[in-house]
Amino acid sequence: MTIKIFVTGGTFDKEYNELRGELFFKRTHVPEMLKLGRCKLEVDVRTLMMIDSLCMTEADRRNILESCKRATEDRIVITHGTDTMVETAKLLADSIKDETIILTGAMVPYKFGSSDGLFNLGSSLAFAQTLPAGVYISMNGKCFRWDNVRKNKKTGEFEERQHYARKPS
Amino acid sequence: MTIKIFVTGGTFDKEYNELRGELFFKRTHVPEMLKLGRCKLEVDVRTLMMIDSLCMTEADRRNILESCKRATEDRIVITHGTDTMVETAKLLADSIKDETIILTGAMVPYKFGSSDGLFNLGSSLAFAQTLPAGVYISMNGKCFRWDNVRKNKKTGEFEERQHYARKPS
Amino acid sequence: MTIKIFVTGGTFDKEYNELRGELFFKRTHVPEMLKLGRCKLEVDVRTLMMIDSLCMTEADRRNILESCKRATEDRIVITHGTDTMVETAKLLADSIKDETIILTGAMVPYKFGSSDGLFNLGSSLAFAQTLPAGVYISMNGKCFRWDNVRKNKKTGEFEERQHYARKPS
Amino acid sequence: MTIKIFVTGGTFDKEYNELRGELFFKRTHVPEMLKLGRCKLEVDVRTLMMIDSLCMTEADRRNILESCKRATEDRIVITHGTDTMVETAKLLADSIKDETIILTGAMVPYKFGSSDGLFNLGSSLAFAQTLPAGVYISMNGKCFRWDNVRKNKKTGEFEERQHYARKPS
Repeated sequence: MTIKIFVTGGTFDKEYNELRGELFFKRTHVPEMLKLGRCKLEVDVRTLMMIDSLCMTEADRRNILESCKRATEDRIVITHGTDTMVETAKLLADSIKDETIILTGAMVPYKFGSSDGLFNLGSSLAFAQTLPAGVYISMNGKCFRWDNVRKNKKTGEFEERQHYARKPS
Repeated sequence: MTIKIFVTGGTFDKEYNELRGELFFKRTHVPEMLKLGRCKLEVDVRTLMMIDSLCMTEADRRNILESCKRATEDRIVITHGTDTMVETAKLLADSIKDETIILTGAMVPYKFGSSDGLFNLGSSLAFAQTLPAGVYISMNGKCFRWDNVRKNKKTGEFEERQHYARKPS
Repeated sequence: MTIKIFVTGGTFDKEYNELRGELFFKRTHVPEMLKLGRCKLEVDVRTLMMIDSLCMTEADRRNILESCKRATEDRIVITHGTDTMVETAKLLADSIKDETIILTGAMVPYKFGSSDGLFNLGSSLAFAQTLPAGVYISMNGKCFRWDNVRKNKKTGEFEERQHYARKPS
Repeated sequence: MTIKIFVTGGTFDKEYNELRGELFFKRTHVPEMLKLGRCKLEVDVRTLMMIDSLCMTEADRRNILESCKRATEDRIVITHGTDTMVETAKLLADSIKDETIILTGAMVPYKFGSSDGLFNLGSSLAFAQTLPAGVYISMNGKCFRWDNVRKNKKTGEFEERQHYARKPS
């Protein structure tokens, strides 16, 4: 079983430009992270884009969707900025029914030493192997179904929708 | 759902004694690693022992077994030295049938910067949430059933027994 | 002999705000860096401000000058953003003649793992102990007199003025 | 001015062998450390040996001495295990009078993340540029003359001999 990893950028892959003192994207660190994790799974890493998810356009999301559809693997991990991860998950879930797709990201860039990225990558590859077909978001050790998650902007954490969306009867 | 984490030592938790230039155990880094991973799962971390798995006695293994039996949680991750991980897994599997137990470890100590520990911890917590009752070893992104794995001492990797143990009929 | 360390901010001390994805200042990492370097010198660390040196006003620079004048130590290291380090050095040199003052900084924040900060701090404390009274800039292992240095904005490096300022006669 | 750097091993350059769980030497990290420090000094790095200083023989020390004598540079930094650093310094001081030689080392291997090596390398290169001819030991931000230093085995720190060696008259 090969797992496809689609890279789209996000905090995961941001770096520090030491001449300009700014954050930017160069190339993905996913292969380096897999090496650090001594990962022995068969994976195929493809970079689709390297952008902040706040800059992601409808066309970018279509690109991700088409890439998932065309993939011969039925287990896919997507690295993605956290800000619009739920939106992309929803688009994928509308069209794709027979693949296990895990979206994941990081709160701190991998290169900054104190990153949660390696932990999230480890979890996501495990969820990709074990969960039934569906679209999920994996962050902070947890895994949420695409239709039961939101990002809490105050805490930066993903949480279940049902915890706060209970409608009065 | 709370996940129990039993700490037994192993490379995971080794540190460098700068006065004596030797490796030693102080206390577990699992809580620090969970914090780095921004883990939001409910976990309960208990240190059972802090030893090299080559030094693990039959009594130590009994201690691990009894701790698993007494645990109120039915999903358990055990950090363990890799050298005798398979042996402990076998002992647990003989007696425990209704819990999901994941044994994991690391090739390089967490404190040494280039460790695979955070990746393995992330994977193990995901496998603990998703796999049915049974005893498993999770290393390098993979998860093996206790009765279908061995450590390849040359490569340091865990691999499936059936790949090399097929006997001619 | 005690060495005074004045902290003014700069790249040295920038951190990553994981909720907003931006760089910001919290508190200085100089004490943590001295601990990492197992520094056994007597030092007295004082934070004067925590700002980007591009935001440094004339009043801020006066504050640094007055602090140096009031210091009872005659050996001083100042951590400072690199962009206007030369300007501050010039102001200090105009008024202070009997102290050894070393300005230093970093190209990458200490917290980002790949920082030059610890190397520069080590060099600066050594230069502060050994150079005669005067105002210097210490970066990249080198030490420049305040009146013979400029920051090359293309390369990010400090270099001697005389290398490029020789006018044809 | 070029600074010669002679590498002899020591804790500085130790690595972790993940198959055997032991510390060992592969190749020096000094060039990588100079790169991390964005060092712009002209340096020439030569590896003389890669050993623990407790294993250093008289012949090894002769090798270091002859290498210093043959060097065309008169400013030299030597990376060295801390246990017998004072002994080597003494041998060098007996024969060499016209070079500035700085011996330095680390309490924790550079590869282990929490190393003092980068700080010590920064200091040593600064001391090498500024101190008069002589043989010195640079550790923990301090610089000691070869004939006024010992390693305190309890604390792991280098300290001046005169602090403890005052004999009653």
